Amino acid sequence: MLTDDEKAIFNDNLTCEETMKYAMDNAKDIIALGFDVKKTFIYSDLKYLGGHFLMNAWEFSKLVTFNQVRGAFGFNESTNIGRAFFPSVQCVAAFATSYPEIWAEEPLQDRLPSIARIPCLIPMGIDQDPYFRLVRDNAHRMRNPSPKPALIHSKFLTALQGAGGKMSSSNPNSAIFMTDTPKQIKTKINRHAFSGGQVNLEEHRRIGGNPDVDVSYIYLTYFEESDEKLAEVYKNYREGSLLTGELKKMAIDLLQEYVQQFQTRRAAVTDQVLEEFMRPRKLEWGGNPRHPSPNVTEAGRVAN
Amino acid sequence: MLTDDEKAIFNDNLTCEETMKYAMDNAKDIIALGFDVKKTFIYSDLKYLGGHFLMNAWEFSKLVTFNQVRGAFGFNESTNIGRAFFPSVQCVAAFATSYPEIWAEEPLQDRLPSIARIPCLIPMGIDQDPYFRLVRDNAHRMRNPSPKPALIHSKFLTALQGAGGKMSSSNPNSAIFMTDTPKQIKTKINRHAFSGGQVNLEEHRRIGGNPDVDVSYIYLTYFEESDEKLAEVYKNYREGSLLTGELKKMAIDLLQEYVQQFQTRRAAVTDQVLEEFMRPRKLEWGGNPRHPSPNVTEAGRVAN
Repeated sequence: MLTDDEKAIFNDNLTCEETMKYAMDNAKDIIALGFDVKKTFIYSDLKYLGGHFLMNAWEFSKLVTFNQVRGAFGFNESTNIGRAFFPSVQCVAAFATSYPEIWAEEPLQDRLPSIARIPCLIPMGIDQDPYFRLVRDNAHRMRNPSPKPALIHSKFLTALQGAGGKMSSSNPNSAIFMTDTPKQIKTKINRHAFSGGQVNLEEHRRIGGNPDVDVSYIYLTYFEESDEKLAEVYKNYREGSLLTGELKKMAIDLLQEYVQQFQTRRAAVTDQVLEEFMRPRKLEWGGNPRHPSPNVTEAGRVAN
Repeated sequence: MLTDDEKAIFNDNLTCEETMKYAMDNAKDIIALGFDVKKTFIYSDLKYLGGHFLMNAWEFSKLVTFNQVRGAFGFNESTNIGRAFFPSVQCVAAFATSYPEIWAEEPLQDRLPSIARIPCLIPMGIDQDPYFRLVRDNAHRMRNPSPKPALIHSKFLTALQGAGGKMSSSNPNSAIFMTDTPKQIKTKINRHAFSGGQVNLEEHRRIGGNPDVDVSYIYLTYFEESDEKLAEVYKNYREGSLLTGELKKMAIDLLQEYVQQFQTRRAAVTDQVLEEFMRPRKLEWGGNPRHPSPNVTEAGRVAN
């Protein structure tokens, strides 16, 4: 769900056309993370919203009063009516019936109870939480009830300046960007990544560093897959046997590789690739070969 | 514009699926009145809403606060958010940019200022007036401004019981239905149409009837095309030379013919005919041969 509509309503200086263009760029970034086109449908609200999706939004909007969105989002009587309604759109994105095309070769004609029962998992930024409280409160009240969606609250990456700092595109030294060169990454981490080390080598060897506040270590926890290796780095830095420069070097290597691989995949996301991801169509799921999954006997019905 | 979405939001007992079905029947009735498929695009909100139409609705929704719809429609804080937002949908139906398909062979990619300038005429029931006050107040504030739409306030036909009476489907003797047989029409008018005549023939000849309150005469004014004929009937009834029975006969003949012709045309409106009227496509206008029109040089631009 690319919420280009939300951005246009909440930002007074952006038009629908502009937010849709940004959304297309975002979609290419998302694809470059490595999603499987067979299992992935990406859509722009401004293009896709209609049909069953909109029917769900209208139906959901009957369940929610202005008082309730005022409480949930801090709206008041001077809030525009677009913002008041928007939660309906955001919420029903969690209902499987909103996507009549992805379950069958021919788009489903009606919103079926059996499709409505398919559960939904939402990875989201913490700021989106009020929307999903609303949907968890009301999902069972739809004519075809849906289960409460399950949520994963994503952590934001910390700024280079350390915990509590804010990444900001107006301060290029606050963050590593996915467009940075290897040299920029190296310079930023060496110069700006907040360190949990001591003021000099002797002190560091004597009392050790603090990985809990060290941004290089925190970044390692995001991108290093091996828990054993992370535990070892934590221990060595804490003891003072691993130096700040060595830890920064690890973060630099990992980030240079991650960003470079991303950039290679991003360059491969042509308009044609994007179009295929955004084409409403039947998706194919076969489970994740790395994780055994329960037997799926038919669309949305999981064998017990 | 078939407002099946509005009906679903404002009526607690109707689902979107039900109102959409009713809308299709209404569309067939509308077609049977004699619209030209080359000049007419009929759409269900629940099916068509999306794309440029929805962009216009979101953009319009930024111009209107909850306070304003509260004032215009008598909403309060317990009103559901669907009703609060719905005026945006209703209002932007008056903007030509909401219909990217009807102006060119290929649907327009952007909402163009030149298309936005095409004026709009809205025939409507008086109850829809608040919506169009809102659109007239805000049309010039859109990014691509539109002219204030012009409105025709339609009169409702009076009930058979006379002025101020209410036609009601639960009282079949209050109205002529488009499904009535010639015999039903005759019986209803003879028995139930309020008359402006006198209690007996002598009185009627002596002081004359009152056509202003006579339902048969009022119905004649709706369906009789000739103003001369109407004036003559008015004068003769007023003078008492035309009797109530004779006047009723005129209304019966006219309504029997009108309803019968409607029923013939209605029977010819198959699902295929309906589908063509509802297919988003370029429309063709060549003016009305019965009325000379200004020279149209290009879509929406009228030569001065």
